[in-house]
Amino acid sequence: MSNALPVTRAENFADWYQAVVSEADLAEESGVRGCMIIRPWGYGIWQRIQELFDRRFRETGHENCYFPIFIPLSFIAKEAEHVEGFAKEMAVVTHHRLKMIDGVLQPDPEAKLEEPLIVRPTSETVIGAAFQRWIRSYRDLPLLLNQWANVVRWEMRPRLFLRTSEFLWQEGHTAHASAEEALEETLRMLEVYRSVTEDGLAIPVVTGEKPPHERFPGAESTYAIEAMMQDGKALQAGTAHYLGIHFSQAQNIRFQTERGDLAYAHTTSWGVSTRLVGGVVMTHGDDDGLRLPPIIAPRQIVLVPILRDKPEDRAVLEYCEALAAELRAAAAFGEPLRVALDLRPGRSVDKRWGWIKRGVPIVCEIGGRDAAASSVTLLRRHRARKDGKLAFETTPRAEFLRTAPAALAEVQASLYAEARERMRANIRSDFVTLAEVEAYFKDSSEAESFCGWAQVPWSAPQGAALDAVQEQLKRLKITVRVAPLAQPQLTGRRCVFTGGAAKEVVLLGRAY
Amino acid sequence: MSNALPVTRAENFADWYQAVVSEADLAEESGVRGCMIIRPWGYGIWQRIQELFDRRFRETGHENCYFPIFIPLSFIAKEAEHVEGFAKEMAVVTHHRLKMIDGVLQPDPEAKLEEPLIVRPTSETVIGAAFQRWIRSYRDLPLLLNQWANVVRWEMRPRLFLRTSEFLWQEGHTAHASAEEALEETLRMLEVYRSVTEDGLAIPVVTGEKPPHERFPGAESTYAIEAMMQDGKALQAGTAHYLGIHFSQAQNIRFQTERGDLAYAHTTSWGVSTRLVGGVVMTHGDDDGLRLPPIIAPRQIVLVPILRDKPEDRAVLEYCEALAAELRAAAAFGEPLRVALDLRPGRSVDKRWGWIKRGVPIVCEIGGRDAAASSVTLLRRHRARKDGKLAFETTPRAEFLRTAPAALAEVQASLYAEARERMRANIRSDFVTLAEVEAYFKDSSEAESFCGWAQVPWSAPQGAALDAVQEQLKRLKITVRVAPLAQPQLTGRRCVFTGGAAKEVVLLGRAY
Repeated sequence: MSNALPVTRAENFADWYQAVVSEADLAEESGVRGCMIIRPWGYGIWQRIQELFDRRFRETGHENCYFPIFIPLSFIAKEAEHVEGFAKEMAVVTHHRLKMIDGVLQPDPEAKLEEPLIVRPTSETVIGAAFQRWIRSYRDLPLLLNQWANVVRWEMRPRLFLRTSEFLWQEGHTAHASAEEALEETLRMLEVYRSVTEDGLAIPVVTGEKPPHERFPGAESTYAIEAMMQDGKALQAGTAHYLGIHFSQAQNIRFQTERGDLAYAHTTSWGVSTRLVGGVVMTHGDDDGLRLPPIIAPRQIVLVPILRDKPEDRAVLEYCEALAAELRAAAAFGEPLRVALDLRPGRSVDKRWGWIKRGVPIVCEIGGRDAAASSVTLLRRHRARKDGKLAFETTPRAEFLRTAPAALAEVQASLYAEARERMRANIRSDFVTLAEVEAYFKDSSEAESFCGWAQVPWSAPQGAALDAVQEQLKRLKITVRVAPLAQPQLTGRRCVFTGGAAKEVVLLGRAY
Repeated sequence: MSNALPVTRAENFADWYQAVVSEADLAEESGVRGCMIIRPWGYGIWQRIQELFDRRFRETGHENCYFPIFIPLSFIAKEAEHVEGFAKEMAVVTHHRLKMIDGVLQPDPEAKLEEPLIVRPTSETVIGAAFQRWIRSYRDLPLLLNQWANVVRWEMRPRLFLRTSEFLWQEGHTAHASAEEALEETLRMLEVYRSVTEDGLAIPVVTGEKPPHERFPGAESTYAIEAMMQDGKALQAGTAHYLGIHFSQAQNIRFQTERGDLAYAHTTSWGVSTRLVGGVVMTHGDDDGLRLPPIIAPRQIVLVPILRDKPEDRAVLEYCEALAAELRAAAAFGEPLRVALDLRPGRSVDKRWGWIKRGVPIVCEIGGRDAAASSVTLLRRHRARKDGKLAFETTPRAEFLRTAPAALAEVQASLYAEARERMRANIRSDFVTLAEVEAYFKDSSEAESFCGWAQVPWSAPQGAALDAVQEQLKRLKITVRVAPLAQPQLTGRRCVFTGGAAKEVVLLGRAY
């Protein structure tokens, strides 16, 4: 039996990704360069992801707010002076009116803005300006804010969810009285990212710190969660920055301490985005489409009635409606089950494949036989096939109802375990020389085959030594992902790049 | 005892509004012309409002999705040709990169966009283009979408929440096989708007249809909910448009009917925005600040412990913590109570006034006496004063816990009843001549005194006759708000403007 998608992961991973995003109705190109339309199924997944994070942000004392989409150019200029390596690919608003001139609608020359406005690529500058107004005393700290918003960074090579000119995200921004508290906050939010991504999205990650050359411009330290996709590449799935007093100095965010003197606030920022939806696809998808962890599935169970335009249909429909009602009264993961009864016009076999491609954890097909026998025929999406065929099971109705929550929990755990085992098995750590590293990444590059990550001893080079390493990395088309927070014993090992004494291990890999 | 705000409604309603928005920590100017910062308390109210609407949208079969913030100029031009009265105050993106030239950061001349992009003022055009791709057959209809998004319409005279260059809103967009179904949808969403605004926000509204000259450009008919603010002005609080096939013709949205021929889809759109937060302020606020209906209050009950830096504080804190925990385990309006225990540093009297200004429905002040006597001292915000003094009550703890949900329900009902009675009492309907209407609005205009609305007989003039009426309205600085859906008997009455036979009554008023 052939696969539901026109291309498999093994044939062409990039095309396969595109096919899943399209066939699962997640998103599509909009006609506006680099901007995507997030379709209801994709947006439903994002809303579930938002809810999971938002709850944790609240529990850790953060409040939501909203800052303007436009940032005056002078705010950016101030940062640009302050921060080297500031990315400048931004959407610039220069006019505030259109006018019909000689029959052509165009920017009205008389409505040119005195100062151009930038569509926010991130909000440190505009939020920092507010912090400067709001923070007077140590009593105002910590200030713990978050916003859910759209941001724009012009992309020359866009890919749906992974790299889009506009994307949706949350950005946390906090200010603290001391470096210790701000660093603690940064690591707290990194841990929130880890736990939601692993427990909710079922995506295993490595938490770690970025090397200096991969830091957010202006940050003292940048931490990230890194996930391994099925092609072995790394996806930076969330970042948390300890910004020190760099931004406070640039924006004069000072407060009166308990002792009465003035001090700069220590700030942090952290974000996750719709990119995570791409991570879900590349972690859990198979050659039949998406597979969704039940915790983030907009629908966890879908009932497809098999109707034949005959009087018996009525019994099937009534049976399905009663079953759906009972399922909705049940709960999994502390919430009511999300159940759909698919009554749209169309053939049941098409509907079945539609839900398989969308990744619904449990798809039920209910025909006259099930209604008569009080049974349920179902497919568990996470192991949909056996010997190449769809692995339908038939279960007594009461049994199905009783075990549905546990079955969903099993899907969640199983998807996580599968991805975790894949990540574990594909981090190689026996490298001694750079030549070995080169051979590893070179071979896999040529064959377009799976490669995974290399865990190598690292001497944490600085300055010119780091520049030299960056050249080597560039040649191999790999990057240092993170130095994992959990470090192994390193006695006597040498850095594969510099030959110097290793201070820690870092993960190397290709990345999205 | 003086009021908590520096200005009263009677002294200067506009300044009073500004004071509430500021003192209740709802929002502030951002420094970017016309764009506001929505602070956590204001954003919390908006999130509650979102939840109420979103639930109803889901229940009525709509799915959330997300379309790009940028609309190519050519999309807008197509609409502009098609639609008269097209507003052109929009933010225009012309460049996609900044560059440092001669030490000045500026739009990079080499990164000028071939086609300018417009920051969406509304999304009919970009969503219509997607409808054109997605809709093939009657089986694809109805298509019921909604998005929560930010939009930009350049404002020369911005006012926080009421008129801002950027605002947050939802925009519903639907397509249907017939005019009847589309009109039914339009009225269904109008009813959703009415019920959430009245039952959730406790703002009474009149539902009705706009006269032709007040329609959304391109709409066949525009319906609105209109609310009366405490200064007698009208606030258009939500609109629903039946767009006929105008947009389908412009964008070629066609489908194959059941009979096999091609037909244009009938579309609708409908929206409510952060403007509603301004409506809450101007409906329920008093001279001490905001008063919040409990259903949309981010916190419904706040406990302020009275601490004296003495060992007895410990008992007060423990008493408060236990009380907060028990309250949180209770429910009102089908949801757990939202309770805060205010442990911030600072004087309890300042905290009390802070919560009063923010409009928390029930503010409790708990001191040593309460802890010892197992009682609760509380203030019901909706009737905070008696004979000018704060009307504190002391209640046994058990009694307070038992009655808290009912007390909140009483606040909700009472705020609605008060506003409803004010609206009812201030719609005058005994006008026979235009001179009477003129005198009514002229007098109130000069004295800056309350005026309310005039309900007048209306002959539904068209063309030149309507133009003449518009001149008269303009002179009086009033507008036709709506022809209410609920119409009185009109036997023999004459239009106050044209003298022609009245077809219906309309409401006249000043408006935000």
